[in-house]
Amino acid sequence: MSIAHEASCIFCKIIKGEIPSFKLLETKYSYSFLDIQPTSKGHLLVIPKYHGAMLHNIPDEYLADILPVTKKLVKALGLEVTTPDEDGYNVLQNNGRIAHQVVDHVHFHLIPKRDPETGLVIGWPARNADMGELSEFAKELTAKLA
Amino acid sequence: MSIAHEASCIFCKIIKGEIPSFKLLETKYSYSFLDIQPTSKGHLLVIPKYHGAMLHNIPDEYLADILPVTKKLVKALGLEVTTPDEDGYNVLQNNGRIAHQVVDHVHFHLIPKRDPETGLVIGWPARNADMGELSEFAKELTAKLA
Ligand SMILES: [Zn+2]
Ligand SMILES: [Zn+2]
Repeated sequence: MSIAHEASCIFCKIIKGEIPSFKLLETKYSYSFLDIQPTSKGHLLVIPKYHGAMLHNIPDEYLADILPVTKKLVKALGLEVTTPDEDGYNVLQNNGRIAHQVVDHVHFHLIPKRDPETGLVIGWPARNADMGELSEFAKELTAKLA
Repeated sequence: MSIAHEASCIFCKIIKGEIPSFKLLETKYSYSFLDIQPTSKGHLLVIPKYHGAMLHNIPDEYLADILPVTKKLVKALGLEVTTPDEDGYNVLQNNGRIAHQVVDHVHFHLIPKRDPETGLVIGWPARNADMGELSEFAKELTAKLA
Protein backbone atom coordinates (compact mmCIF):
# COMPACT_ATOMS: atom_id res chain seq x y z
CA MET A 1 0.00 0.00 0.00
CA SER A 2 1.69 3.18 -1.14
CA ILE A 3 -0.98 5.45 0.27
CA ALA A 4 -1.15 6.95 3.74
CA HIS A 5 -1.20 4.24 6.38
CA GLU A 6 -0.44 4.10 10.05
CA ALA A 7 1.95 1.58 11.56
CA SER A 8 -0.18 1.05 14.65
CA CYS A 9 -3.55 0.73 12.87
CA ILE A 10 -5.12 -2.73 13.01
CA PHE A 11 -7.08 -2.17 9.78
CA CYS A 12 -3.98 -0.96 7.91
CA LYS A 13 -2.30 -4.18 9.08
CA ILE A 14 -5.24 -6.22 7.79
CA ILE A 15 -5.02 -4.50 4.39
CA LYS A 16 -1.28 -5.23 4.24
CA GLY A 17 -1.85 -8.86 5.27
CA GLU A 18 0.12 -8.48 8.49
CA ILE A 19 -2.96 -9.52 10.46
CA PRO A 20 -5.21 -12.26 9.04
CA SER A 21 -8.80 -11.52 8.07
CA PHE A 22 -11.74 -13.27 6.44
CA LYS A 23 -11.28 -11.29 3.25
CA LEU A 24 -14.16 -10.94 0.79
CA LEU A 25 -13.38 -8.37 -1.91
CA GLU A 26 -10.40 -6.18 -2.64
CA THR A 27 -10.32 -3.39 -5.22
CA LYS A 28 -7.80 -0.64 -5.94
CA TYR A 29 -9.55 1.53 -3.33
CA SER A 30 -11.20 -0.73 -0.78
CA TYR A 31 -10.92 -3.95 1.21
CA SER A 32 -13.78 -5.90 2.77
CA PHE A 33 -13.87 -8.69 5.32
CA LEU A 34 -16.14 -10.39 7.85
CA ASP A 35 -16.47 -8.75 11.27
CA ILE A 36 -15.22 -11.23 13.89
CA GLN A 37 -17.61 -9.79 16.47
CA PRO A 38 -20.74 -9.79 14.33
CA THR A 39 -24.12 -8.54 15.47
CA SER A 40 -25.76 -10.88 12.92
CA LYS A 41 -24.62 -13.57 10.48
CA GLY A 42 -22.83 -11.94 7.56
CA HIS A 43 -21.99 -8.66 9.36
CA LEU A 44 -19.01 -7.37 7.43
CA LEU A 45 -16.83 -4.29 6.99
CA VAL A 46 -15.84 -2.32 3.90
CA ILE A 47 -12.83 -0.06 4.47
CA PRO A 48 -10.91 2.37 2.26
CA LYS A 49 -7.30 1.41 1.52
CA TYR A 50 -6.32 4.80 2.88
CA HIS A 51 -5.75 5.50 6.52
CA GLY A 52 -8.06 8.10 7.95
CA ALA A 53 -10.01 8.09 11.19
CA MET A 54 -13.16 9.75 9.94
CA LEU A 55 -15.12 10.02 6.71
CA HIS A 56 -14.06 13.64 6.18
CA ASN A 57 -10.41 12.50 6.12
CA ILE A 58 -10.84 10.20 3.10
CA PRO A 59 -10.18 11.31 -0.52
CA ASP A 60 -13.20 11.19 -2.85
CA GLU A 61 -11.88 8.41 -5.11
CA TYR A 62 -11.75 6.07 -2.09
CA LEU A 63 -15.20 7.11 -0.89
CA ALA A 64 -16.69 6.61 -4.35
CA ASP A 65 -15.71 2.94 -4.34
CA ILE A 66 -17.34 2.00 -1.03
CA LEU A 67 -21.04 1.78 -1.96
CA PRO A 68 -20.72 -0.02 -5.32
CA VAL A 69 -18.62 -2.63 -3.47
CA THR A 70 -21.21 -2.78 -0.69
CA LYS A 71 -23.87 -3.48 -3.31
CA LYS A 72 -21.88 -6.49 -4.58
CA LEU A 73 -21.63 -7.80 -1.03
CA VAL A 74 -25.38 -7.34 -0.44
CA LYS A 75 -25.98 -9.59 -3.45
CA ALA A 76 -23.46 -12.21 -2.27
CA LEU A 77 -25.22 -12.27 1.10
CA GLY A 78 -28.53 -13.05 -0.61
CA LEU A 79 -30.06 -9.80 0.64
CA GLU A 80 -31.13 -8.58 -2.80
CA VAL A 81 -34.76 -8.60 -1.71
CA THR A 82 -37.54 -7.29 -3.91
CA THR A 83 -39.96 -5.90 -1.32
CA PRO A 84 -39.32 -3.93 1.88
CA ASP A 85 -41.13 -6.60 3.93
CA GLU A 86 -38.49 -9.29 3.53
CA ASP A 87 -35.09 -9.52 5.24
CA GLY A 88 -33.28 -6.20 5.39
CA TYR A 89 -29.87 -4.68 6.02
CA ASN A 90 -28.30 -1.55 7.40
CA VAL A 91 -25.24 0.33 6.17
CA LEU A 92 -23.62 2.24 9.02
CA GLN A 93 -20.45 4.28 9.43
CA ASN A 94 -19.61 5.83 12.81
CA ASN A 95 -17.36 8.83 13.40
CA GLY A 96 -16.08 9.62 16.89
CA ARG A 97 -16.31 7.87 20.27
CA ILE A 98 -19.66 9.46 21.05
CA ALA A 99 -20.98 8.04 17.77
CA HIS A 100 -19.88 4.47 18.62
CA GLN A 101 -16.57 4.40 16.71
CA VAL A 102 -13.96 2.03 18.19
CA VAL A 103 -11.29 1.51 15.50
CA ASP A 104 -9.87 4.76 14.11
CA HIS A 105 -9.74 3.77 10.44
CA VAL A 106 -12.95 4.54 8.53
CA HIS A 107 -15.13 1.43 8.20
CA PHE A 108 -18.60 0.85 6.80
CA HIS A 109 -20.65 -1.83 8.49
CA LEU A 110 -22.94 -3.90 6.27
CA ILE A 111 -25.29 -5.54 8.76
CA PRO A 112 -27.92 -8.09 7.74
CA LYS A 113 -31.21 -7.56 9.61
CA ARG A 114 -33.24 -10.75 9.62
CA ASP A 115 -34.88 -10.59 13.05
CA PRO A 116 -35.41 -8.01 15.80
CA GLU A 117 -32.85 -9.55 18.18
CA THR A 118 -29.75 -9.61 15.95
CA GLY A 119 -28.15 -7.00 13.73
CA LEU A 120 -28.29 -3.27 14.32
CA VAL A 121 -30.71 -2.04 16.96
CA ILE A 122 -31.79 1.54 16.31
CA GLY A 123 -33.01 4.21 18.72
CA TRP A 124 -34.48 7.23 16.97
CA PRO A 125 -35.21 10.28 19.17
CA ALA A 126 -36.88 12.26 16.38
CA ARG A 127 -38.96 15.35 16.95
CA ASN A 128 -40.86 17.61 14.55
CA ALA A 129 -38.58 20.52 13.69
CA ASP A 130 -39.49 24.20 13.79
CA MET A 131 -39.82 25.09 10.10
CA GLY A 132 -38.49 28.62 10.59
CA GLU A 133 -35.38 27.34 12.32
CA LEU A 134 -34.82 24.73 9.61
CA SER A 135 -35.17 27.35 6.91
CA GLU A 136 -32.58 29.59 8.59
CA PHE A 137 -30.23 26.67 9.13
CA ALA A 138 -30.55 25.56 5.49
CA LYS A 139 -29.57 29.09 4.38
CA GLU A 140 -26.58 29.06 6.72
CA LEU A 141 -25.38 25.70 5.39
CA THR A 142 -26.02 26.63 1.77
CA ALA A 143 -23.80 29.70 2.20
CA LYS A 144 -21.00 27.46 3.48
CA LEU A 145 -21.48 25.06 0.57
CA ALA A 146 -21.35 27.76 -2.09
CA MET B 1 -35.36 14.08 -14.10
CA SER B 2 -35.11 11.74 -17.05
CA ILE B 3 -34.10 8.73 -14.96
CA ALA B 4 -36.39 6.18 -13.34
CA HIS B 5 -38.76 7.81 -10.92
CA GLU B 6 -42.05 6.90 -9.39
CA ALA B 7 -45.09 9.13 -9.49
CA SER B 8 -46.16 8.30 -5.95
CA CYS B 9 -42.72 8.64 -4.32
CA ILE B 10 -42.35 11.58 -1.93
CA PHE B 11 -38.58 11.79 -2.48
CA CYS B 12 -38.95 11.75 -6.28
CA LYS B 13 -41.40 14.64 -5.84
CA ILE B 14 -38.88 16.51 -3.70
CA ILE B 15 -36.18 16.03 -6.37
CA LYS B 16 -38.56 17.34 -9.04
CA GLY B 17 -39.55 20.31 -6.84
CA GLU B 18 -43.18 19.21 -6.61
CA ILE B 19 -42.86 19.09 -2.83
CA PRO B 20 -40.77 21.77 -1.08
CA SER B 21 -37.63 20.83 0.84
CA PHE B 22 -34.79 22.53 2.69
CA LYS B 23 -32.37 21.77 -0.12
CA LEU B 24 -28.63 21.79 0.53
CA LEU B 25 -26.70 20.37 -2.41
CA GLU B 26 -27.69 19.03 -5.79
CA THR B 27 -25.39 17.26 -8.22
CA LYS B 28 -26.03 15.31 -11.42
CA TYR B 29 -26.55 12.18 -9.31
CA SER B 30 -27.77 13.22 -5.88
CA TYR B 31 -29.94 15.62 -3.93
CA SER B 32 -29.59 16.51 -0.25
CA PHE B 33 -31.89 18.29 2.19
CA LEU B 34 -32.63 18.70 5.89
CA ASP B 35 -34.73 16.03 7.58
CA ILE B 36 -37.89 17.69 8.93
CA GLN B 37 -38.09 15.14 11.73
CA PRO B 38 -34.48 15.35 12.88
CA THR B 39 -32.98 13.29 15.68
CA SER B 40 -30.38 16.05 16.21
CA LYS B 41 -29.68 19.52 14.81
CA GLY B 42 -28.36 19.21 11.27
CA HIS B 43 -29.76 15.71 10.62
CA LEU B 44 -30.00 15.57 6.83
CA LEU B 45 -30.59 13.18 3.95
CA VAL B 46 -28.59 12.48 0.81
CA ILE B 47 -30.58 10.65 -1.86
CA PRO B 48 -29.77 9.38 -5.35
CA LYS B 49 -31.65 11.08 -8.19
CA TYR B 50 -32.78 7.64 -9.24
CA HIS B 51 -35.80 5.90 -7.82
CA GLY B 52 -34.98 2.64 -6.09
CA ALA B 53 -36.19 1.32 -2.77
CA MET B 54 -32.97 -0.31 -1.63
CA LEU B 55 -29.26 0.16 -2.08
CA HIS B 56 -28.97 -2.88 -4.35
CA ASN B 57 -31.44 -1.23 -6.78
CA ILE B 58 -29.25 1.82 -7.45
CA PRO B 59 -26.76 2.05 -10.36
CA ASP B 60 -23.10 2.43 -9.39
CA GLU B 61 -22.66 5.96 -10.76
CA TYR B 62 -25.38 7.20 -8.41
CA LEU B 63 -23.93 5.31 -5.45
CA ALA B 64 -20.44 6.66 -6.14
CA ASP B 65 -21.64 10.23 -5.70
CA ILE B 66 -23.24 9.81 -2.26
CA LEU B 67 -20.22 9.73 0.06
CA PRO B 68 -18.18 12.55 -1.52
CA VAL B 69 -21.31 14.71 -1.21
CA THR B 70 -21.78 13.55 2.38
CA LYS B 71 -18.20 14.65 3.11
CA LYS B 72 -18.97 18.17 1.84
CA LEU B 73 -22.02 18.28 4.12
CA VAL B 74 -20.01 17.10 7.14
CA LYS B 75 -17.70 20.06 6.59
CA ALA B 76 -20.58 22.53 6.21
CA LEU B 77 -22.02 21.22 9.48
CA GLY B 78 -18.73 21.99 11.26
CA LEU B 79 -18.21 18.32 12.08
CA GLU B 80 -14.76 18.11 10.53
CA VAL B 81 -13.25 17.23 13.89
CA THR B 82 -9.60 16.29 14.32
CA THR B 83 -9.80 13.78 17.17
CA PRO B 84 -12.33 11.02 17.89
CA ASP B 85 -13.13 12.55 21.28
CA GLU B 86 -14.92 15.62 19.92
CA ASP B 87 -18.43 15.82 18.41
CA GLY B 88 -19.17 12.93 16.08
CA TYR B 89 -21.59 11.84 13.38
CA ASN B 90 -23.17 8.72 11.95
CA VAL B 91 -23.90 7.83 8.35
CA LEU B 92 -26.79 5.37 8.13
CA GLN B 93 -28.79 3.83 5.33
CA ASN B 94 -31.64 1.43 6.12
CA ASN B 95 -33.07 -1.22 3.80
CA GLY B 96 -36.40 -2.88 4.59
CA ARG B 97 -39.06 -2.37 7.25
CA ILE B 98 -37.27 -4.63 9.72
CA ALA B 99 -34.17 -2.45 9.31
CA HIS B 100 -36.09 0.77 10.11
CA GLN B 101 -36.75 1.97 6.54
CA VAL B 102 -39.89 4.12 6.18
CA VAL B 103 -39.64 5.88 2.78
CA ASP B 104 -39.01 3.51 -0.13
CA HIS B 105 -36.48 5.65 -2.00
CA VAL B 106 -32.87 5.03 -0.93
CA HIS B 107 -31.70 7.70 1.51
CA PHE B 108 -28.54 8.16 3.52
CA HIS B 109 -28.90 9.82 6.90
CA LEU B 110 -26.09 12.10 8.03
CA ILE B 111 -26.72 12.46 11.76
CA PRO B 112 -24.67 14.78 13.99
CA LYS B 113 -23.90 13.17 17.35
CA ARG B 114 -23.09 15.83 19.91
CA ASP B 115 -24.61 14.34 23.07
CA PRO B 116 -25.96 10.96 24.21
CA GLU B 117 -29.64 12.03 24.14
CA THR B 118 -29.93 13.27 20.53
CA GLY B 119 -28.88 11.79 17.22
CA LEU B 120 -28.66 8.09 16.47
CA VAL B 121 -28.90 5.72 19.41
CA ILE B 122 -27.17 2.43 18.69
CA GLY B 123 -27.79 -1.04 20.13
CA TRP B 124 -25.07 -3.53 19.27
CA PRO B 125 -25.81 -7.17 20.10
CA ALA B 126 -22.32 -8.40 19.14
CA ARG B 127 -20.94 -11.80 20.04
CA ASN B 128 -17.58 -13.41 19.38
CA ALA B 129 -17.93 -15.51 16.23
CA ASP B 130 -16.85 -19.12 15.80
CA MET B 131 -13.72 -18.81 13.64
CA GLY B 132 -14.39 -22.08 11.81
CA GLU B 133 -17.88 -20.96 10.86
CA LEU B 134 -16.60 -17.55 9.71
CA SER B 135 -13.93 -19.19 7.59
CA GLU B 136 -16.51 -21.43 5.88
CA PHE B 137 -18.86 -18.51 5.35
CA ALA B 138 -16.09 -16.36 3.87
CA LYS B 139 -15.34 -19.15 1.36
CA GLU B 140 -19.01 -19.42 0.45
CA LEU B 141 -19.30 -15.66 -0.13
CA THR B 142 -16.02 -15.46 -2.03
CA ALA B 143 -17.27 -18.12 -4.44
CA LYS B 144 -20.38 -16.01 -5.10
CA LEU B 145 -18.25 -12.89 -5.62
CA ALA B 146 -15.90 -14.55 -8.14
ZN1 LIG C 1 -5.50 2.48 9.14
ZN1 LIG D 1 -38.38 7.92 -5.55
